[in-house]
Amino acid sequence: MSEFKQIGQPKPLLDGFDKVTGRTRYAPDLTLPGMLHARFVTSPHAHATIENIDVSAALELPGVTAVLTAADLPDIPPKSRNRLLLARDKVIFAGQPVALVLAEDLGAAQDGVELVWVDYDALPAVVTLEEALADDAPLVWPTGTPGETGEAAAHGADVGGDEKEKKPSNIAGESKFERGDLAEGFAAADVVVERPFTTPMVHQSYLETFSMLVQPDPMGSGATVWTSTQAPFYVREVVAEVLGLAETAVRVIPTTVGGAFGAKFLLYEPLVALAAQAVNRPVRLALTRSEDMLATNPAPPAQFNIRLGMKQDGTITALDAEMQFDAGCYPSPHGIAAFLMGSLYQIPHMQIRYTEVMTHKLSTAAYRAPGAPQAAFVLESAIDEAARRLNLDPIDVRIKNASKAGDPMAHGKPWSTMGMTDVLQKLQAHPAWQNRAEAKARGRGVGMAIGGWPGGIEPTAASCQLHRDGTLHVHVGSVDLTGTTAGFSLIAAEAFGISPEQVRVISGDTSTASFAGATGGSKITYMVGPSVIKAAQDARQQVMEIAAEELEADVADMEVVDGRVQVKGVPDKAIELGDIAKKTMRFGGKYAPVVGNGRHANTTNSPGFAAQLAEVSVDAETGEVTVHKLVVVQDVGRAINPLTLEGQIMGGAMQGLGWALYEQMAHDAYGTPLTGSWLDYNVPHFIHAVPEFEAVLVEVPTEHGPFGARGAGEPPIIATAAAVGNAIADATCARLTDLPMTPPRVLAAMSS
Amino acid sequence: MSEFKQIGQPKPLLDGFDKVTGRTRYAPDLTLPGMLHARFVTSPHAHATIENIDVSAALELPGVTAVLTAADLPDIPPKSRNRLLLARDKVIFAGQPVALVLAEDLGAAQDGVELVWVDYDALPAVVTLEEALADDAPLVWPTGTPGETGEAAAHGADVGGDEKEKKPSNIAGESKFERGDLAEGFAAADVVVERPFTTPMVHQSYLETFSMLVQPDPMGSGATVWTSTQAPFYVREVVAEVLGLAETAVRVIPTTVGGAFGAKFLLYEPLVALAAQAVNRPVRLALTRSEDMLATNPAPPAQFNIRLGMKQDGTITALDAEMQFDAGCYPSPHGIAAFLMGSLYQIPHMQIRYTEVMTHKLSTAAYRAPGAPQAAFVLESAIDEAARRLNLDPIDVRIKNASKAGDPMAHGKPWSTMGMTDVLQKLQAHPAWQNRAEAKARGRGVGMAIGGWPGGIEPTAASCQLHRDGTLHVHVGSVDLTGTTAGFSLIAAEAFGISPEQVRVISGDTSTASFAGATGGSKITYMVGPSVIKAAQDARQQVMEIAAEELEADVADMEVVDGRVQVKGVPDKAIELGDIAKKTMRFGGKYAPVVGNGRHANTTNSPGFAAQLAEVSVDAETGEVTVHKLVVVQDVGRAINPLTLEGQIMGGAMQGLGWALYEQMAHDAYGTPLTGSWLDYNVPHFIHAVPEFEAVLVEVPTEHGPFGARGAGEPPIIATAAAVGNAIADATCARLTDLPMTPPRVLAAMSS
Repeated sequence: MSEFKQIGQPKPLLDGFDKVTGRTRYAPDLTLPGMLHARFVTSPHAHATIENIDVSAALELPGVTAVLTAADLPDIPPKSRNRLLLARDKVIFAGQPVALVLAEDLGAAQDGVELVWVDYDALPAVVTLEEALADDAPLVWPTGTPGETGEAAAHGADVGGDEKEKKPSNIAGESKFERGDLAEGFAAADVVVERPFTTPMVHQSYLETFSMLVQPDPMGSGATVWTSTQAPFYVREVVAEVLGLAETAVRVIPTTVGGAFGAKFLLYEPLVALAAQAVNRPVRLALTRSEDMLATNPAPPAQFNIRLGMKQDGTITALDAEMQFDAGCYPSPHGIAAFLMGSLYQIPHMQIRYTEVMTHKLSTAAYRAPGAPQAAFVLESAIDEAARRLNLDPIDVRIKNASKAGDPMAHGKPWSTMGMTDVLQKLQAHPAWQNRAEAKARGRGVGMAIGGWPGGIEPTAASCQLHRDGTLHVHVGSVDLTGTTAGFSLIAAEAFGISPEQVRVISGDTSTASFAGATGGSKITYMVGPSVIKAAQDARQQVMEIAAEELEADVADMEVVDGRVQVKGVPDKAIELGDIAKKTMRFGGKYAPVVGNGRHANTTNSPGFAAQLAEVSVDAETGEVTVHKLVVVQDVGRAINPLTLEGQIMGGAMQGLGWALYEQMAHDAYGTPLTGSWLDYNVPHFIHAVPEFEAVLVEVPTEHGPFGARGAGEPPIIATAAAVGNAIADATCARLTDLPMTPPRVLAAMSS
Repeated sequence: MSEFKQIGQPKPLLDGFDKVTGRTRYAPDLTLPGMLHARFVTSPHAHATIENIDVSAALELPGVTAVLTAADLPDIPPKSRNRLLLARDKVIFAGQPVALVLAEDLGAAQDGVELVWVDYDALPAVVTLEEALADDAPLVWPTGTPGETGEAAAHGADVGGDEKEKKPSNIAGESKFERGDLAEGFAAADVVVERPFTTPMVHQSYLETFSMLVQPDPMGSGATVWTSTQAPFYVREVVAEVLGLAETAVRVIPTTVGGAFGAKFLLYEPLVALAAQAVNRPVRLALTRSEDMLATNPAPPAQFNIRLGMKQDGTITALDAEMQFDAGCYPSPHGIAAFLMGSLYQIPHMQIRYTEVMTHKLSTAAYRAPGAPQAAFVLESAIDEAARRLNLDPIDVRIKNASKAGDPMAHGKPWSTMGMTDVLQKLQAHPAWQNRAEAKARGRGVGMAIGGWPGGIEPTAASCQLHRDGTLHVHVGSVDLTGTTAGFSLIAAEAFGISPEQVRVISGDTSTASFAGATGGSKITYMVGPSVIKAAQDARQQVMEIAAEELEADVADMEVVDGRVQVKGVPDKAIELGDIAKKTMRFGGKYAPVVGNGRHANTTNSPGFAAQLAEVSVDAETGEVTVHKLVVVQDVGRAINPLTLEGQIMGGAMQGLGWALYEQMAHDAYGTPLTGSWLDYNVPHFIHAVPEFEAVLVEVPTEHGPFGARGAGEPPIIATAAAVGNAIADATCARLTDLPMTPPRVLAAMSS
């Protein structure tokens, strides 16, 4: 029997019913009296100077209220993509907003866009990594790289490494991890695998496009922002800065997010806030799918060269890797790819080099475990190939080299408690792995891979109140993306000793909630959970004290049973929680209201690992890959809510399949986007074969998480592409080195 | 030099600028997409059965969406006025809502009202106390008096006394206070004053009429209520009950209140919530002034008989008083009038009887110090007359008999610390009293009186957060009516050690704020203030700990100076508050966010007293009274914010002038309202002579209030009418016994 009463019980998403029945209201559903609709005029050029913008025809259109250009906005330094606002003099990617049409209705706004005339003088654009790194390359930022890395940090992706300052170039950043002596390492190897790899630009493909509504304070000194964001406190900080206000003059109310996956920290909120301020009316911007594909911030493409040496006993002796990430028109730190590549296994001799390059393409940003699926695809493919060539069990090889708690990471600091070996062993024992020979006999291939995420940390606070209807309200400042709310109701119920049905979790806005960081980096349950526990325990203690006084008993003799507080073992001597609350919330009451509080900070990450197995078949004539089975074994520390964890893991692995087989944003030689809608961009859906899916939860508790829980959001996406690639190799002996592994690429690999 | 840095500094109302410039948004300014406007069809009869309601013509009107009658609403027991909803079968007062027209715009709603045909069968109505108490009187509630006294309790007006159950009658309640032996007491008296008195029905005359907006939860299981209320948590409780929801499924967002004075606890919110639920659209109801005069809840009229005995030395020997309050169609406990009459002075022999009677008139409720101005007018007039007849200084007489801390109140429990004698002495020393002979010589009269309010208690909680812009946000659940918000900013600043400009007070709604009771009963500063202090001190301690660690110093050596935390006496070793907050609200931060909390309960009332002096002249030909000077000396315990206190005192005394000279709601013999607008109902305004006004603050601290503060809202209205009446007696020797003291009544008294 579990030591827990609530933790570990499967609890459905609290908002699931409303979402599947279409009742949930998202940011684009919000309207305000006097609200204007906004629509972008975007650049068709990847690089050009703006000679003239003629808005007069648009302004004559009935319903068009204003057409804003950079000239109408303050000239703030564009030090981050979210401060680029509207193009000023120059455009640096195709799709960049050049003007903003504001109209009484959406139709007028769209028609207005067609009537804005912009004269461009096209300039040569750098579109590929090679072009950007050429000696005489045109520079995206001739006067120096704009600097802000706040979002990368917020994903836990800021891991240091040796970064150098450079003179203006298209290089946004470089880092390197080194250990031992490469020559010695490779000399000790019995086999050396050396290959180039590439991964594409991939869009986060949330269902809800970027959407927001800004209302200038009717009192004239502030703004309210409703936005589909993962990071309300970050939105508040930057919007206030751009508007020139004190931070708390801005209130950010996060709306239900229709998918984000790292993309929705902050993008057009500062622009829309300035627009609303300029016209002193509420302004709503909800991107069309094409605008969203053109002008948001997908995951960067990357290219790799890897050389990996292995001894016959499976020891990895050396790793030599270099990688270039194509960040687009702004820096987008993904050095964690190099960090992870050098940290997962204990490799005595290694050198890993990371270069971040800017091009005239849309900016890139985080996508679920940013950098990790790419690194895992490369490293886990190479290890798999080496093991295969040495005829070793690929899981044995990984277990042999896997890092363990206390082992050094790439930067030399030690890993904390981690379940890497545990999940590998669990997968190894799984029937789908044990019986892989049978699958092989049926013409299929079975492959596996593993991925890990260090986990983010950020201070939090939470509070809770006992109400007269007997419910405990838990107030948190975090946005619910993946069922953290349902999890908090279990956590609070466990800590207080009531059922989760008596708990209501309220995700507040920046004016009403205590601080919590962005929902990203696999840190909400991990960091907010302990504050929820403390708050619930605090409230419980207050309740115990009131009950003891009412029942004339000792506090130490009280217990909570079935929503009542009673003297231990004496159900007749009890008081309902609602009755306790009533005594604290009435005229003349002698007890203070029950308000529990929790504050939490923590400087230790708790990494999460997920090993994956894919069972595939490959059509030898078309090259089409069918994934029949996908097993994800993940260390979640403690399964607070197995149901939502399984859903989260399935979702992550489905996105991993997108990386593996389908998704790629493409640009032509001029930097013109070729994938401007979901007609061109291939996200996984039900016309693809959906594999039989299994999530296996492993619990290696961490002392730092709530009841031992670790972050679980990022890990399940990381290893999928590598597992599928390794399964293809198992089925066909062909090694795929470019994502996505499309039928032509599979055919080509099979015939090489 | 004051022991305080912030307390006692005059601080303007924080919302004053927005209010006087018209920028404040009130409930009627709110609109929602799809919102319907509501308008009442009201009964012209005071008592009638409803034979038929024909809504068909109204429904045909373009723009009219629905016409609701009782048949469309759940048949809930009308146990309180706010649950009476729409008349079902019968009306019990003229003006009672019979149907509710819902339309797309206000014009259509109003036109729709004209097209609803209601057939009534008129019944005999009881309009006066005499009619209601007659043996064969028609009964307002033939099946028994509906019972709910929550609001009276919330004003501190629920003081016990001997209440008896009765068989159905128009008597809603009776109570009695007795002490000693009346015969003995009157035998010892040298003079006995015996008189009847009457006081009228008076409207609270807030500028903003009753207004509210209800939005059904788009998810179908709750409601949001924006309303101009003093009591958001009470609104939540009853609306949830009426909608059949858990209490916390209802969110009440209190809007800026444009005046309330006890009237705006809860009235039409349940009806509008049911209407919104019935049509599943947002519904806004904003009463017209006439609707508000017809169908809200003013102060009840009352009649009194008093007999008071006094010895030549000024000792009050006996008090025999009876009073009937005309509650209108619902109970409206005002027994505190009897309680106060029997508690202010230590009278050895007394008997005070209170009867609450129901009539076929609109229901009545609290109006600032409910019952107290009436009781004070009667008692203070009688004492004044006795003193005058014995040629005693009326202040000496009062000081001689005044209750002191520890003396028994009418119900036998002791008074706590109180400033009654202090304010009397302060007024006695005031030049306007000392020089009253000069005024007399100029043909004027000077009178005084005193009133007191026991003060309410109700548990509260508050919290505060330190933000990155260096501000401390204080969250409270109380509605700001009279500058409590400005006061809390001073209180928090004092407790934390910063300037009030660094504090922002947020009055939250029922979903985001900790509980605080209704803003009424003079208890917000008194009861919420201590929670604010505790919260600020808690936050301060957290800040000290972080600063000490950052500055590598001892917590005990830290101090807050000029918005920075520094090592005592070492300004170089300091850290800005905003920088501390930043360290608690960033990725990887090692300190938990600064969140301070305070909870407070208190079972001791702290009474507040105000003595008033009026200097008047009376036009002997017209009977018109001119008040030249009004001095209010009030014990506020501690003047947190002298500026807003003076404003509050002035406002109360101006309303007291309305009681004294101008205001009276009237009904004809059939119960038809005669005062349906401010054309008929005479509120004090600038066409009347506005007296020279002086507020004198006395500080007799109470250990229970924040920094010693007592409730200050109710006291200043209590004694005004009595002081003016006594001044008239001083000027003319005529004793006025009926409010308002209109010119005809003055002339009549002068000629009697």
